[in-house]
Amino acid sequence: MSIQYRVLSLLRDLGPLSRAQLSDELEVARPRLLAELEALIAAGKVLEAGRATSRGGRPSTLVQLDPDIRFAAVDLGASSIDIEITDGGLNPIASYAEAADIRKGPRAVLDRVNELLNTMANQAGCTRFNSIGIGLPGPVSFKEGISVSPPIMPGWDRFPVRNTLTRAHGCPVVVDNDVNVMALGERYAGVAKAVDNLLFVKIGSGIGCGVQVHGQIYRGSEGSAGDIGHIQVEPEGPACSCGRTGCLEAFFGGVALARDATAAARSGQSPALAERLAAEGALTAVDVGECAAGGDVTCVNLIRDGGHRVGQVLATLVSFINPSMIVIGGGVSGLGHLLLAEIRSVVYKGSLPLATGNLQIVLSELGPRAGVAGAALLASELDFGNHL
Amino acid sequence: MSIQYRVLSLLRDLGPLSRAQLSDELEVARPRLLAELEALIAAGKVLEAGRATSRGGRPSTLVQLDPDIRFAAVDLGASSIDIEITDGGLNPIASYAEAADIRKGPRAVLDRVNELLNTMANQAGCTRFNSIGIGLPGPVSFKEGISVSPPIMPGWDRFPVRNTLTRAHGCPVVVDNDVNVMALGERYAGVAKAVDNLLFVKIGSGIGCGVQVHGQIYRGSEGSAGDIGHIQVEPEGPACSCGRTGCLEAFFGGVALARDATAAARSGQSPALAERLAAEGALTAVDVGECAAGGDVTCVNLIRDGGHRVGQVLATLVSFINPSMIVIGGGVSGLGHLLLAEIRSVVYKGSLPLATGNLQIVLSELGPRAGVAGAALLASELDFGNHL
Repeated sequence: MSIQYRVLSLLRDLGPLSRAQLSDELEVARPRLLAELEALIAAGKVLEAGRATSRGGRPSTLVQLDPDIRFAAVDLGASSIDIEITDGGLNPIASYAEAADIRKGPRAVLDRVNELLNTMANQAGCTRFNSIGIGLPGPVSFKEGISVSPPIMPGWDRFPVRNTLTRAHGCPVVVDNDVNVMALGERYAGVAKAVDNLLFVKIGSGIGCGVQVHGQIYRGSEGSAGDIGHIQVEPEGPACSCGRTGCLEAFFGGVALARDATAAARSGQSPALAERLAAEGALTAVDVGECAAGGDVTCVNLIRDGGHRVGQVLATLVSFINPSMIVIGGGVSGLGHLLLAEIRSVVYKGSLPLATGNLQIVLSELGPRAGVAGAALLASELDFGNHL
Repeated sequence: MSIQYRVLSLLRDLGPLSRAQLSDELEVARPRLLAELEALIAAGKVLEAGRATSRGGRPSTLVQLDPDIRFAAVDLGASSIDIEITDGGLNPIASYAEAADIRKGPRAVLDRVNELLNTMANQAGCTRFNSIGIGLPGPVSFKEGISVSPPIMPGWDRFPVRNTLTRAHGCPVVVDNDVNVMALGERYAGVAKAVDNLLFVKIGSGIGCGVQVHGQIYRGSEGSAGDIGHIQVEPEGPACSCGRTGCLEAFFGGVALARDATAAARSGQSPALAERLAAEGALTAVDVGECAAGGDVTCVNLIRDGGHRVGQVLATLVSFINPSMIVIGGGVSGLGHLLLAEIRSVVYKGSLPLATGNLQIVLSELGPRAGVAGAALLASELDFGNHL
């Protein structure tokens, strides 16, 4: 890691610091540090920012990140776009979310993303982004900045996402899997601070998992690590969007829940769901959660059964990867503690005591912000010169 | 990595080199390199070794590792002890294997290991070991050098393996899980050279898995990563040695195969096995393999069923960790291509195309030597100053 990168990331994480504080934190000789700081000031990345509280000796001048640094963070889900514009310290300047359909293909979806980014930048008085981070709901070739063989994203295979955004905004862009950026976000700013071996399980329309080992995102040999939604849990199970049968996300996740809820409404098994279906015309995971909270037994069982399936897969992964924390996030994690309790019970019972003794299984703290928090972090790493 | 470590490991891996070659390989300024070499020569780790072939300029003197460097490598299985003594280049000087029973407890087993090490050292004219590497068939706290909560090793929990061997031989000792050292061995000297994301699946008495990601052994938060033998594949399945039911190794592995073979012999289902049981008094995986090769349908099915179970678990792990190679080793991998074919078929069918497109599933090249090869490598890393 270069000294300049380390200075910039310290100022991002801790705010304005004196040269003395930087020298202490970085354990770099003062003359070397001052030279690197001069270079950063000349490049406009760092500014002087008034006097620090004296520590006895000469008064020390604070330095800070250029307040005009702007990162754009985009989290594409199967059915949503979340965007944040942040300053250099990753504090949100503007944020926006809307429903979307990833199946409309890369041109339509990325055109909309570019339009939103431009509108938000205008409203926030931001003339350019330093860099952009974006998460996609499928496997990504991180080095090439393209999406690869995504099972639920027709038209996206090998689409040049990075180049498309770079051309539109004239800045560097980093592209990653949505669950990887969520795991990064949760570790940087959420419930998983300083956790080195971490699984972030996203239960949204489908199910995916961000894997961090030794404190780093692990993407796998082809970028498909963590693709747990397509683990086949029952070969004879329901059809899955990937063309096979019995995958985990054919049993649970937003799409499967909506399907099962609609069936339960139509068959008369759940009067509460039937009432909602008649009123709204369609059902989602939110309806299942609300009816479960209202005491509807069918809905409680749908959540329990889903949690049980997810727990069985996670029990296997816990035996294999022995993480110290599993974070449950994504839209369907809004089903909350009923879902969490079921997952915990299956994992704690289904793995060896050594692997579960210190294992925490918790809900995401950042919720829908996990993705943009991680995408902004990636954008800043790229801008600060970390060779991603 | 220190320059001294890099010099020593280059001489280990490439043999004698000239100062010019070392300087080129390491990209270190010549004066700095010469100073570090002088220190290594003064410490007796490196010797001068005659003239190198001239490259035109001044003749260059070769340097090599001290030919008296000796590493001891120990691979403890549930039912075997394998030992090698190597020189600094990890070439075997002496090797020995015998049957053992890990359940006799740490004192009895390690006493025998110490006795064997002393006898082999005497016979090989070796007065001391530079360091010792040892693999144990259960979870290990790598930092503490102890075994932790091993399900099949009564009496070993938190036993100070490292200190016991250090006291007996007066040299540094490194302790790791047996599958981790096998994965290391196979990557250093076997079929998995330069493979960064690797699973080494040991099918011996039980089943375990060494995990390498980003080119490094991944041990997990409590040292239990890769403990796939105790993944519960069928809660209603047979009793397992760990006290639970339906674990993978309750279905397959040396112990399960011997159990199933004995049942097939007694029930008359397999006349070939019945004949062997009558002649030998007990059956092992080797009998199953030999009878299968002789066309015994029951034995062929036992191997196929076992390969199917292992393949199902691996299909899940492939979707999750997206490795580029899976190496199948351990004693039962002697069942060979029938087993491999079944595992391949299930994994290639059961995981997404993106994860299997470039995935190789192969048999261990080092066979029973994988463990000692990795343990010797670990011993050398410790001796050469790599902070393990």
